[in-house]
Amino acid sequence: MRIGVLLVELKIPENVGFIARVMKNFGFSELYLYNCKVTEQSYVTAAHAKDVLENAVRLNSFEEILEHGNILIGTTGVTAKAQERYIRKPIFSPEELRAFLEGKDGKVIVAFGREDYGLFDEELELCHMIVTIPTNPEYPVMNVSHAVAVILYELSKGRYGVEEKTYATAKDIENLVANFEKLMKAVWYPKHRIDRTIIALRRILGRSLITRRELTVLHGIVTKSITYVEKLKKELENCK
Amino acid sequence: MRIGVLLVELKIPENVGFIARVMKNFGFSELYLYNCKVTEQSYVTAAHAKDVLENAVRLNSFEEILEHGNILIGTTGVTAKAQERYIRKPIFSPEELRAFLEGKDGKVIVAFGREDYGLFDEELELCHMIVTIPTNPEYPVMNVSHAVAVILYELSKGRYGVEEKTYATAKDIENLVANFEKLMKAVWYPKHRIDRTIIALRRILGRSLITRRELTVLHGIVTKSITYVEKLKKELENCK
Repeated sequence: MRIGVLLVELKIPENVGFIARVMKNFGFSELYLYNCKVTEQSYVTAAHAKDVLENAVRLNSFEEILEHGNILIGTTGVTAKAQERYIRKPIFSPEELRAFLEGKDGKVIVAFGREDYGLFDEELELCHMIVTIPTNPEYPVMNVSHAVAVILYELSKGRYGVEEKTYATAKDIENLVANFEKLMKAVWYPKHRIDRTIIALRRILGRSLITRRELTVLHGIVTKSITYVEKLKKELENCK
Repeated sequence: MRIGVLLVELKIPENVGFIARVMKNFGFSELYLYNCKVTEQSYVTAAHAKDVLENAVRLNSFEEILEHGNILIGTTGVTAKAQERYIRKPIFSPEELRAFLEGKDGKVIVAFGREDYGLFDEELELCHMIVTIPTNPEYPVMNVSHAVAVILYELSKGRYGVEEKTYATAKDIENLVANFEKLMKAVWYPKHRIDRTIIALRRILGRSLITRRELTVLHGIVTKSITYVEKLKKELENCK
């Protein structure tokens, strides 16, 4: 599913640029502007997303957007009170929106309104789905570019990943614990403490989300300590 | 688990304010500043989160933060290339961070670095967990306040909900379809089209995530149409 962003009568030129930037950060490029103030400052805040701003489609009315997409999503930063109004019912979270769009074809337009008033009721009426970001009722109103960031972050999930981590298996951890036990014996660690220390090590390592690579690092210290201790012991024997 | 935000050497005063605002939007208030530029402009962009800014704790060094939390999270907007460096390994997504913190006690500090360089290597070295937001490799670097917005949005999940929706059951939908069938018969809708129309209605309604409340609205039109048609029919009979 393709995703476009419609901005409605934004007055602060920086916001349009910030939004172009965050669109590009999450791999989106289709920007629609209805009566937004775009100045040189917009290009400053767009940073390396000037292309998104340059290619933005200008609309002459809000209704014109209906020709550009299949599903129109209206966003609103509402209080619990306002959620009760029928124009905002039913209201969905960004996660619910993502789940709904998953695997669907076509093009969805997500509309964001004025810095002060958001989208007007007449505009929300035309939307197929109303979305709000769950926020603190004491201060629910987000900066519009932050709201765009959050929604595009949610909608881009699964597009870009972070590296796959290879976590150590329980067996890997057991091997390291055994190596620690070897070290404890080599340095004559008090015998009555060995058991509880082994358990503590096992639990610390098990809870730490340790990767295989990190485990190797720990093996390194332990093994080197053991071999060095053995070497010293031998030297001492020869010396006597 | 309590969550604090540490900002490191931010130079643009507006950013500190934007971050204070988005913290309050998601219900967080513990802000730590190390050598950030805070001016009147910060208070403008903080909007109704001036209290967060006023109560921010100033640190004299990055290391000082270690006294304020149990787990230190370093954030980085890295390219795939940079992810290969051992200082950034293993690297976690905001979702993985949230999953890791779930149900844990204590206080976590999430650190965000300079607008241009992010956190320095020496700072990332001190962190217990490295987090990055999965972004477009063509333009991975986010505005710092947007990165904060996304991470706090993810970490605040479950705190604030949107209203519970009561979706119509399949049986509710069937009742509406039956009502439509009644209307079709009342208006002598071509018999050979009724079956396929019923199937189309059932599928459209079933896919639309229709709520009980919305279903009632549709019942309203259909029932009113039927009764009005019946009324006209009777009037016409009496007239003949």
